[in-house]
Amino acid sequence: MSYIIRPWALKDLKAVVRLIRESASLHKALDQVKTTPEMLRDDGFREDATFGSLVAEVPPEQRSKEGDTIVGYQFHYLTYCTWDGHILFGEDLYVLPGFRGKGIGSSLLAKAAKIALAKGCSQIRFISANWNQPATDFYTKLGALNVTVQDNWNLCSIEREQIQKLVEQGRK
Amino acid sequence: MSYIIRPWALKDLKAVVRLIRESASLHKALDQVKTTPEMLRDDGFREDATFGSLVAEVPPEQRSKEGDTIVGYQFHYLTYCTWDGHILFGEDLYVLPGFRGKGIGSSLLAKAAKIALAKGCSQIRFISANWNQPATDFYTKLGALNVTVQDNWNLCSIEREQIQKLVEQGRK
Repeated sequence: MSYIIRPWALKDLKAVVRLIRESASLHKALDQVKTTPEMLRDDGFREDATFGSLVAEVPPEQRSKEGDTIVGYQFHYLTYCTWDGHILFGEDLYVLPGFRGKGIGSSLLAKAAKIALAKGCSQIRFISANWNQPATDFYTKLGALNVTVQDNWNLCSIEREQIQKLVEQGRK
Repeated sequence: MSYIIRPWALKDLKAVVRLIRESASLHKALDQVKTTPEMLRDDGFREDATFGSLVAEVPPEQRSKEGDTIVGYQFHYLTYCTWDGHILFGEDLYVLPGFRGKGIGSSLLAKAAKIALAKGCSQIRFISANWNQPATDFYTKLGALNVTVQDNWNLCSIEREQIQKLVEQGRK
């Protein structure tokens, strides 16, 4: 199977949203996906956009049953560690089930690693669900460390309603 | 005690690096801090800077024993969730021990919440060490959720040497 890895373009937005939704389904969180192609276009293709994505594309004759030629994506942005400088954060890495085991995931990550080096990043960070054993195996093989297990770092979130409350308390 | 919360400026860089080092000491990770005021200046005060910081400042007559008037900081950047759009990520929140319990931490977070709302963020995310009980209590009181516990999300990292290997493998 042949494929290329390239930065996303406007023409990929619908396909990427399809993959985002597939990945969210896997995490039983499809009801949380509010993202549309228009939203990704407005946020991701403006001059001060803070994120980007790589896509894996196969030739038309190798498209999926559903007609997709974009069969994987790696979504990323630059963050900053106050101990060590820039970090590339991999928000999502997903390859359609029928296209796995062909090196597409590692190729997406290798291209992201190239971006990380070019931007002077000391690390690539990402979040992985600890019940997703195939993902854990994949990342472990690539030399990733689980920082939650190693250093007891837990990810926390303050959601919209609480943000609003915080702002109101700050006004008092 | 009176204090103001404001965005950082070039004159605060040395003080912020002192606080970064104090916070890292608390996490027994001072040896990992490579950050200098010059590095933060070069990365954080250029036109395409991807991060910012708030600082808490007290009047000169209330300065710390060590002479600090910058007694706390909240360091943040914009990230993006492919399910729900922009998220403000709080990389660090730290207040000097002698200045705690006076509302400075919540005021820093309230100001960050204001930035989050202005940027259309659906969440504020941050990482907290699960052994740091005072921090956990503080965040729980503010309505934060522990996503690692709730959804089994683990934070992972690919470090510099492995990034280099990934790039080399990608070339083959």
